[in-house]
Amino acid sequence: MKRRSLMKGMAAAAGAAAAGGMVRPGFAQADALPSWNEGTVKRSILDFIARTTTMGGRDWVPVPERIACFDNDGTLWTEQPVYFQIAFALDRVKAMAPRHPEWRTQEPFRSVLAGDRAALAALGEKGFIEIVAATHTGLTTEAFTEAVLDWLATARHPRFDRPYTDLVYQPMLELLALLRAQRFKTFIVSGGGIEFMRPWTERIYGIPPEQVVGSSGVTRYELRPDGTPVLVKEPKVQFIDDGPGKPEGINQFIGRRPVFAFGNSDGDQQMLEWTAAGSGARFMGLVHHTDAVREYAYDRPSPIGQLDKAWDEALRRNWTIVDMKTDWKVIYPFELR
Amino acid sequence: MKRRSLMKGMAAAAGAAAAGGMVRPGFAQADALPSWNEGTVKRSILDFIARTTTMGGRDWVPVPERIACFDNDGTLWTEQPVYFQIAFALDRVKAMAPRHPEWRTQEPFRSVLAGDRAALAALGEKGFIEIVAATHTGLTTEAFTEAVLDWLATARHPRFDRPYTDLVYQPMLELLALLRAQRFKTFIVSGGGIEFMRPWTERIYGIPPEQVVGSSGVTRYELRPDGTPVLVKEPKVQFIDDGPGKPEGINQFIGRRPVFAFGNSDGDQQMLEWTAAGSGARFMGLVHHTDAVREYAYDRPSPIGQLDKAWDEALRRNWTIVDMKTDWKVIYPFELR
Repeated sequence: MKRRSLMKGMAAAAGAAAAGGMVRPGFAQADALPSWNEGTVKRSILDFIARTTTMGGRDWVPVPERIACFDNDGTLWTEQPVYFQIAFALDRVKAMAPRHPEWRTQEPFRSVLAGDRAALAALGEKGFIEIVAATHTGLTTEAFTEAVLDWLATARHPRFDRPYTDLVYQPMLELLALLRAQRFKTFIVSGGGIEFMRPWTERIYGIPPEQVVGSSGVTRYELRPDGTPVLVKEPKVQFIDDGPGKPEGINQFIGRRPVFAFGNSDGDQQMLEWTAAGSGARFMGLVHHTDAVREYAYDRPSPIGQLDKAWDEALRRNWTIVDMKTDWKVIYPFELR
Repeated sequence: MKRRSLMKGMAAAAGAAAAGGMVRPGFAQADALPSWNEGTVKRSILDFIARTTTMGGRDWVPVPERIACFDNDGTLWTEQPVYFQIAFALDRVKAMAPRHPEWRTQEPFRSVLAGDRAALAALGEKGFIEIVAATHTGLTTEAFTEAVLDWLATARHPRFDRPYTDLVYQPMLELLALLRAQRFKTFIVSGGGIEFMRPWTERIYGIPPEQVVGSSGVTRYELRPDGTPVLVKEPKVQFIDDGPGKPEGINQFIGRRPVFAFGNSDGDQQMLEWTAAGSGARFMGLVHHTDAVREYAYDRPSPIGQLDKAWDEALRRNWTIVDMKTDWKVIYPFELR
């Protein structure tokens, strides 16, 4: 950099710093969130990160306390037309069917195999629990991981005709990267299955398995006849990481209160409340799905990702609400290619 | 460094590297484990770390896979004459007694308050579960953390007359630091209570709460009348992280198989088996308590920290066994002051 442009850069940086930006003196800074449109939402994020990472400032947060928690479905990737884990379970019923001839007549499997949409829609929770139990248990953790990876390698989203892991949100990838660059530890805290997420979160989000909190089943340690130990997935719930389960899960798995949390639905309300109740600077964010053209538009009456009570609370308490349509320049990474 | 001594250092480093040491070319290296006596045990540790962190070597382990798990009681700190958490629970019965006049006649509390050693010894598991339930539940997670910290600030070990957190093993502190310097992520995987450990493990071991796996109770999310959310500790077990529970807990909390694991008792056997069953280089270690003068000596018949079946397996499979008396130059950090 030439002397003249250095001086220019410093002046720009000083201006940005005065405006509350994250810029360190002496360095002009590239936009760390290029897929976010300028506006109050982007500003609230950048301002929070600047305040909490500026040593000596009133809102400075020591590095070990920089815990950031993200819901997954609807916050980091799409959750429509059904949670992707449900799509996985339904596909797995089909894949397992040759070994289960009885499923041709036995509900709820018959409806899945027949592609009977009306019957599927009427299945209810009990039916889905049966499907999850049949497709997610009775095998080793390693075999399950392989099943997840095989599915992700071949399955395609019905609307976008792309692998499901293509449907992650580019703006959130940028936010995760920015937080980590500022020494936040990023966690997923999802109602989804912990073993469904861990095989790919490191590659896709840069979030390692030990920073993924989610719902889980009981596993049983077992020595195979040749002495090899395995963990067998049992048809018994260990922990449901949703609603009040999210702060409980955060306490159980992380043992520290987050200073930053992002969700998109009523299932995230308690996580945001728990985050907000800590002392010092806090960031609470919600993604509002407002873009039927580029993604989906849904909120209060939606059976999937309902945003109703948490929305009211966010409005009342002035939490950050992302309007997907206006705040996000780009939705998916493939739009940039 | 002068040119001549630089050359000398490089020659020494080359020699050490050829001998399998961890030394990087160009730098003479200080002993990273000064409290460990020279011998096969120290060599097995240094050799493992060197092999797994030498890029391009056959046994190289990528940084994200460098997961090291340590049992706590008897592996990182002393566990005699009783697990320190039991001492905490008994002291807490005494502290809570003024609010529980009924305890003067009600067992098992009467025996605790009367200091009736014979009755205490005969209490059995049921009695201790009652004591843990009475002293560990019915309060918020924050109030419990304070109770733990208050106790650690005042309680003293009956034999050493020192705070319990003084009774951590200096050689293990050095090993934890060395592993972290070589970019291993260090975890505790303990049968002890997760909320009993997390308030102090970062300060004492450098292990943050989110890297502590342990036994835990159910918590319940609750909004207080003023709207403040709390997590209340319920008298219900969530997870017992002992024996087969250790690989189950590792899978649940970490989601990756460790490449390095250290324990000291039969409760660690399955964690070591699970570690050993992974592919590539693995380290399995046991601390054998052989030093009645400086610490304690116990193994096969001990009611606390029994080392019997895991010892046999370690001998058969050639795992590393630390003989505390001969392998450790120093036991506790205060010996160095």
